[in-house]
Amino acid sequence: MKVLKDRILKDGKVFPGNVLKVDSFLNHQMDIELLRQIGEEFRNRYGDCGVTKVLTIEASGIGIACFVAQSFGVPMLFAKKNKTKNIASDVYTAKVESYTHGTTYDIIVSKEFLNKDDKVLVIDDFLAKGQALLGLINIVESAGAELVGTGIVIEKGFQDGGKLLRESGVRVESLAIVESMDDNGNIIFRN
Amino acid sequence: MKVLKDRILKDGKVFPGNVLKVDSFLNHQMDIELLRQIGEEFRNRYGDCGVTKVLTIEASGIGIACFVAQSFGVPMLFAKKNKTKNIASDVYTAKVESYTHGTTYDIIVSKEFLNKDDKVLVIDDFLAKGQALLGLINIVESAGAELVGTGIVIEKGFQDGGKLLRESGVRVESLAIVESMDDNGNIIFRN
Repeated sequence: MKVLKDRILKDGKVFPGNVLKVDSFLNHQMDIELLRQIGEEFRNRYGDCGVTKVLTIEASGIGIACFVAQSFGVPMLFAKKNKTKNIASDVYTAKVESYTHGTTYDIIVSKEFLNKDDKVLVIDDFLAKGQALLGLINIVESAGAELVGTGIVIEKGFQDGGKLLRESGVRVESLAIVESMDDNGNIIFRN
Repeated sequence: MKVLKDRILKDGKVFPGNVLKVDSFLNHQMDIELLRQIGEEFRNRYGDCGVTKVLTIEASGIGIACFVAQSFGVPMLFAKKNKTKNIASDVYTAKVESYTHGTTYDIIVSKEFLNKDDKVLVIDDFLAKGQALLGLINIVESAGAELVGTGIVIEKGFQDGGKLLRESGVRVESLAIVESMDDNGNIIFRN
C-alpha cells in the first residue's frame, strides 16, 4: 500500500533493537484519513470472503479495526488484556507472550460475541513474532468460528511471525512488509 | 441522544454495585454505525469550537474517539497507561485513581503531539467519578493547550464526577445521563 509505505518512510523513526516508531500517525496519535484508507484496502483484499466480524486486541489495534469493520459493515470486537487473576467462565481466553515487556498475559473475549457462525478477520497494527496474533487465532478456534485471515498494517519481515503463520496455512495480508532497517533510519520494504 | 438511550435500554445490562454493561455495542463489541452517529453528535455540539485534536484514554475510548476525530477532520490522540516504573522526559503524565480496580496508574502522552496551539476535545465512554477525565484534563493543561470541553457517551449522573467537573467550569456534554438504575434492570435517564 503505497500511501502507507510513503508515510512510514516520511514519519517512521527507527530506534536500536529493531524498534520502528510510528506513533505520530498509527498507534498513539492517529491519522484518521489514513486509517480509513487502510480499512478500504483490507476490504479490497478480503471483500469476497463473507466476513461477519473484525477481531483485534487492545489497545493500538482498536482504531484500525474500527475502520476495517466500517468498510465491511460488520461489528468490531476487541480482545481485552485480563486484569484479574481469575478468568470468568463466560469468556474465551488465550495466553500471549510479550517479548517487549518480558511478560505473559491472558487475553479474553466474551463468548456472547463470537460463535461458530462467524467468519472472522483478525486485525493488528504490527506483526513481529506473531504472539498476539496467535492468541487471537486461538480464540477464534475456541469459538468454533472460521478464520478468514489476518490483516496487518506493518509486518517486520525480518522476524519469523509472518513466515510461521503462512506456513501453517493462515492467510496473512500485510500492507507494508519491512525487509530490513538500520540505525541510520533506512527502511527497506519487501516487494 | 435518542438512538443511544434506546440502545442502552435494549441491550444494556445492570449488575449489582451500579455496574452498567454495554459491552455488546460500546466497549467490547462495537457497533460501528452507532459510533459514527456518536461522532456526528459531538460534532453537532462542538463544531464551532475550532477543535484541532481529539484526546482519549486507552482502551475503550479509542473507537469512539476515532469517529469523533473523523467528524471533525482532525487527528485522534490516546493517552497510554504507563507500563514501566520510569516515566520518560518527553511525555506529559498524570495520575489516575481507578476505583474499579483499586489502583492508581500513570497515563502518558508524548509531548510531540500536544502543544499550546491545540484546542482539545476530550472524549471517553463513561463518566462516573471522573478520575480518568481529570487525568486527561491535567495533561491538556500541562501542554498549555486549550480544553474546549469533554464529550462523554454515558454519564452516571448519580455519581459526582460530572457535577464536580461542571462546577469547576469544564464543559461536559454527555449523550446519555443515567439518573438511576436498579438491580431489576430499570434505567432512568435524566432529561
